[in-house]
This record gives sequence, structure tokens and C-alpha cells, in this order.
Amino acid sequence: MRDVAIIGAGMTDFGKFLDRNMKDLCREAVQGALDSAGLDKSKLQAAVVGNATAGLITGQEMIRGQVALRDMGIGGIPIINTENACASSSTAFHVAWTYVASGMYDVALAVGMEKLYHEDKTRSFKAIGSAVDIEWMEQMQEAAAAAKEAKAKDQDNPGVAEGAGEKRSMFMDFYAAFARSHMERYGTTKEQFARIAVKNHYHGSLNPHAQYREVYTLEDILTAPPVAEPLTRLMCSPIGDGAAAAVLVSPEIARQMTTKPVWVKASVLNSGFDRKPGEDDVTTVTAKQAYEQAGVGPEDLNVLEVHDASAPAELVLYEELGLCAKGEGGALIDSKATYFDGPKAVNPSGGLISKGHPIGATGVAQIYEIFSQLRGEAGDRQVKNPKLGLTENGGGMVKGDPAAVSVHIFAV
Amino acid sequence: MRDVAIIGAGMTDFGKFLDRNMKDLCREAVQGALDSAGLDKSKLQAAVVGNATAGLITGQEMIRGQVALRDMGIGGIPIINTENACASSSTAFHVAWTYVASGMYDVALAVGMEKLYHEDKTRSFKAIGSAVDIEWMEQMQEAAAAAKEAKAKDQDNPGVAEGAGEKRSMFMDFYAAFARSHMERYGTTKEQFARIAVKNHYHGSLNPHAQYREVYTLEDILTAPPVAEPLTRLMCSPIGDGAAAAVLVSPEIARQMTTKPVWVKASVLNSGFDRKPGEDDVTTVTAKQAYEQAGVGPEDLNVLEVHDASAPAELVLYEELGLCAKGEGGALIDSKATYFDGPKAVNPSGGLISKGHPIGATGVAQIYEIFSQLRGEAGDRQVKNPKLGLTENGGGMVKGDPAAVSVHIFAV
Repeated sequence: MRDVAIIGAGMTDFGKFLDRNMKDLCREAVQGALDSAGLDKSKLQAAVVGNATAGLITGQEMIRGQVALRDMGIGGIPIINTENACASSSTAFHVAWTYVASGMYDVALAVGMEKLYHEDKTRSFKAIGSAVDIEWMEQMQEAAAAAKEAKAKDQDNPGVAEGAGEKRSMFMDFYAAFARSHMERYGTTKEQFARIAVKNHYHGSLNPHAQYREVYTLEDILTAPPVAEPLTRLMCSPIGDGAAAAVLVSPEIARQMTTKPVWVKASVLNSGFDRKPGEDDVTTVTAKQAYEQAGVGPEDLNVLEVHDASAPAELVLYEELGLCAKGEGGALIDSKATYFDGPKAVNPSGGLISKGHPIGATGVAQIYEIFSQLRGEAGDRQVKNPKLGLTENGGGMVKGDPAAVSVHIFAV
Repeated sequence: MRDVAIIGAGMTDFGKFLDRNMKDLCREAVQGALDSAGLDKSKLQAAVVGNATAGLITGQEMIRGQVALRDMGIGGIPIINTENACASSSTAFHVAWTYVASGMYDVALAVGMEKLYHEDKTRSFKAIGSAVDIEWMEQMQEAAAAAKEAKAKDQDNPGVAEGAGEKRSMFMDFYAAFARSHMERYGTTKEQFARIAVKNHYHGSLNPHAQYREVYTLEDILTAPPVAEPLTRLMCSPIGDGAAAAVLVSPEIARQMTTKPVWVKASVLNSGFDRKPGEDDVTTVTAKQAYEQAGVGPEDLNVLEVHDASAPAELVLYEELGLCAKGEGGALIDSKATYFDGPKAVNPSGGLISKGHPIGATGVAQIYEIFSQLRGEAGDRQVKNPKLGLTENGGGMVKGDPAAVSVHIFAV
């Protein structure tokens, strides 16, 4: 296994683009990555493309990468389509990295792309719902319906899961339950979750690619429409469209092409497993594997992009990634240490909450942000002189665990 | 890059199993592969899973591998879902091979699985139709409708494309057009295509996993219901359900675990490209790359499994893979050289036509057959003492070229 460098990255704006198709989004992101690398498309030796929902939303299944890349004249190379729910394109990046790290290819492209918006919004929500074991989900829904019926007979029973049954992703119910459990166990407050959202919306306001660019107060976040207690709408990632791409190369090519390569120090993919009592969760395990592969610890990190599909997820990730001890995520956000100008910048891009979350694009878009930060090209949200960055991207759920978790560590 | 061995492979029967879900099919194939390897599932370090249509047929998108593998207690390892239409699981095998060849992991599982049968058969055909650029297909369909209207005004114009408009995969129209072009250019006959089908159905009759196990005469094939001239139904692969799996390991583990490893000598994945006039097609190019990687030529091969989605495809593959010169595919099948007891056995399993074609399962099922043949474990259809085998698996179509082609070469 040899070293691998990123020499170019590109992304589209994230947002609602009903008039743009996936080819169009892919083209902009890939051309952006090639331009940033100073590389002609004819030099690409392999491509790996992550997408999660095109099959269910547009009907384009199976060969999404070839359809989008051939449209811009890229072919005659291995093209692999990867799917791992919200971690689809960090998985694509991981496979592209494997290609280059193994010595098999010297130049590989990683792409993430997603069109979640559709005129028929129920199609979007149904597609997102396929990131779980759908047979298990049906059983859960039947059980929930039975419980609701039972509850209706007992009017003294307090209501839970506000908003349940609305036309939206079931995932926010899981995040909400997870958040309530953290509050109960560690005394974490709704305000602390809201402060994560205040920070990320502020960061998003500084990022021209972000879907939402408004600054919100703590009060704004807390009084936004409720989703599922303790989540309000401004604490949750929106659906959206977008694409991102990165060019990975061998050390020799990196030295030829740029004076500012960003090195991949660790690329670890993992999946949920049947845990013994007291055993670490899959995200904690994956982070430890990545720190070991990179030969660094969380104390060495300057900048992170993490999977804040909802604000509580980021707070809990502080703990799982070892930025603080278990139960101290609330204190860490209170300290403001994770603001982009703090000592441990988290989600300077605005994260999924504010930058947006076109799910198959998110993994490579996180890497785009770290690439930009480490090269000092992040504009108004630039972290001061960062040397070491991390991305954490989670995808799907099976038996209550993430189906996929990937952690990457990057250095200049 | 180090050597990689297969030490175990398993597959389900292929067929119509309305009462079995994908978890069930996956479990049988994976357990078969583990048993064949003499390996406990806890020893797996990575898994790559190919599937093409579950999203569109069952709604289970995104994390199909995790859903099926966790159900049998496999987790805590990287799980990658790959999609490349009919080449989805040879792509999975290629990624698993990359993992082991790179030295990153010592034991990797490759799985292909598909449930094409659904009570609503239009769902199956719609799913298969997503293996092309669907926007392009819509344009083609509009053009075809306009041409049909024009033709109706001119009764002297001879009819083409019998059966067009029926509820079936559009792919057979492409295969038929391709066959007619070969007939016109090289004088290939409909009988020669039919002889491919006679051979493969005969082979399938000897394979207990095959979906169809009937022996047919040339007359039977030619008089079967027409699909699109010159194809009859018995020249076309059916839809079906099934799964296949293989265990790939490092040389060290191969030597510990078995006296009969099957070595992967080449693993090449490619995609269609914009060709200059006279330039080789992507399948020919990919085969040449694989021969070079393995350091062998087509003359060295004893047994092949190739992508006979229709009988003409196999005949043309004889030429693209270099078993004979261009235009001599018809003479090669006439010589009976490609029967399982001939010098150059092709599709001893029965191929896609007779063994069946649950599309995401096909790639690894081809590898299962070569693994069985090279180990001398293929029963009634055993090729005599083969040393070198090849699999060719094609997937999808963009701009008239295969979207994905993979060629693997194996040796004992």
C-alpha cells in the first residue's frame, strides 16, 4: 500500500434544482475537480461513483456513473457504482483510494451525486426510507400502529414522537429517540443540541455552496417547527440536489502536478455488528481504526466534517470520535471550541444541516471541504492554518446500528 | 499487488422462487461458499455485494448487502454495495480482489444476489430496462414510434423487429439487431445462433443449479416462439432469482486452508467509450488487457463462462475474446469445439440461456462454475482436466456500447 494524494476537488452548490438532471450536476462537479487538479479527463484511469436514490426517484438504476460520465466523454476505464446510503460516496472515495493505494491505477476519480428533489415529494421520502432493512421497518411500523391504538385507549399516557406519521423520513424519529436517550443519561439539554444548529447555520452562511445561508439565533432554532422532540426543523438536514468529485493520484503524479497535495492518511469503512454489552459502537471502533492507520489521535485534529444529519448526531459524534469524553458533548459545544475559528473546527462547511444533504453527494462533499480547508482555500470560513482533517460519514441503519460508517483522515 | 486465491464458492439454484426473499438466497450462497472454504463467517474481513434491481423491485435500495449479511450475523467489516447492471457481481468480485491483492485484507467475500421475479412482472421488466441511459431510451422510443407511424403509411416497407412493443426487456431488440448485422456482414445463419442455444440447453440439462434442464433439438430452438428476428425464446436468457458467493484470500491463507486453491490471474473491469473508426470494441480491449495481465492467450484457455444473454452474444464473444477470427464464430459453433467435452468448453454451466440470469448474481455464478470446473468438482458437465478458465460478464448499455465489461482469468 502506497501513499495517495488528492490533487483536485469540485462541487456544485447544494440546493433545490428541479431544472437540472444528474448528468448536469455530475459534469459540473467532475469538471471542477479536473480543473482544480489541472488534469484533462483523458488522464483518468478509473472512476468510482456513489449515488443512493436515482433508481427510486428517476428510474435510472444500475449504471448511473457510466450514464453521467460517458455524457461528458469519460469512458474506456473501470467505472464502479457504489451504494451505501448516505455514505455512498465516501465509499466510492474509499474504493478509488484502494485502486491508487494498491498501485493498480495512478489516477482515479471519486464522485458523489444525488437528485433528491422531485415534483412528487413522497417519492423522495420513500427513497430515503430504503436506507433501512425495509422488512424490519414494516414490522416496526405495524408494532407502532398497534402501540398507538393501545395508547389511544389510555388517555393518561403522555404523547411522544411528535410529527410521527407525517410525510417525511423516518430517520428523524430515530435521531430524536437517540437524542432523548442522551439527555436522560448525561443531562444534555435541548439548548445544547440547538447550539450545534446555531453554529452550523452560521458556518453555512459563510459557504457559497450551502443550501441555507441564513444566520439563526438560539431562540430561532428552538422555536422552529417541531419535527420530533427535541428536534426542530432547523436542527435537521434538508433534502437537496448536488454533486461533488475528487481526483486521487499516486505520490509521483501528485509531485508532478501540484505543490499543494492533500494526503490521505487513513481510509476506513465499516458496518454495524451485533454488539456485546459494553462493547464500543461501530463509529467509535471505526474512528479508532482510522486514528491507528494514520498514526494520530483526536487531539491532533484541526478540522472535521461529520455526519450531522441532525444536530444531536454531531454532539454524539464529538464523543464517538474522541474529541471529548462520553457525556461531555454538550459541554464541548457550550465552549464554542468547534466553531470554525475555534481550536477544533467541526463542520465549517455548515454540515449537512446547513450546507445540505444530497445523500449520495455528501461523503465526497465533506472531503471537498477538508481539501479546501487544508489548502487554505476555504474563503470566509477558513480554519486557521489547519494541518490535519477528518471526515466521518454514516449511512443507513440495520438493527439500530449504522449500516455503513467511513472515516477518512487527511493531512498537508 | 500480490496473488489472490479463491478457496470457496457457493450458489443457490437459479429459478422462480416467489416464496424466498433475498436474505434467504444470500444466506444459502454465502454459507455454501464458507462451507466450501472450511471457513467460519467470523474470519471474513470485508464483503462486496452486487445487486442490480432490488431497489426497483422490492424497494430495498442502498444497503442491500448489509441487510442480507447482518441477517446472518455478518457485520463489523467493510461492506460495499456495487451496481453495474448485469455485471454487478463480477464488479463486486473485482473490488474484493482489489482488497486482497492490495494487501489491505486477507479474507474477502464477494456476493451476487438478485430477485427478479415479482408478482407484478412489469416491475421486473421496468427494472431491467434501467440498465441503459433512460433519458436516451426515452428519445429512442419516441423516434421508434415516429418511424412506426411513417412505416404504416408505406405498406411496401418490409416489417422488422417482430414482437416490439411487447412487455419484455428492450435488450432483446438490441441483441436481435446485433445478430442481423453479423448475419449480413459475415453470412452467419440463424441455425448457427440456434446451435449455441442447443449446446447451452444441453449443458444446462447436466447442471443441477440450472433454471431450465430440458434438452432441445435445433428444430425446437428454431420453432420456439419468436422474440425479435432472428431470436426465438429458447435463444434468450430468462428472468430468474438466485445468489452466488466466493471467498477470496491471500496466498498464505490459501495454503493454510486448502490443497486446491483457484488462482485469480487477471481481474479487469472496463466501460464503453467513444470509438474511433476501426478501433476495437470495449469487450475486445478488455479481453486483451486480461490476457496481458495473466500472461496467457486465448489459445491457452480450457473453459470459459461468457455472457450469453442471447445466443448471438455468445457467438460474437467467440470473436471478441479471440477464440476465433472475426466472422468465424458461426464455424466455431458448427465444429462443436465449444461443447463441454470439446477442446474449448464455453458455458458448461448452461450459460445465461439455460442456467438462468438473475442479473446481479450472474457474475459470481460464472466464477462459481469456473471454480468448480478447475477443481474437478463439476459433476456430469465436468470439462476434462482444465487448467485455465475465463469469465466474461457484460452489463448495461450506454450509447450502444456495454456500460461495464469485466474479464477474469483463473488457473490451478
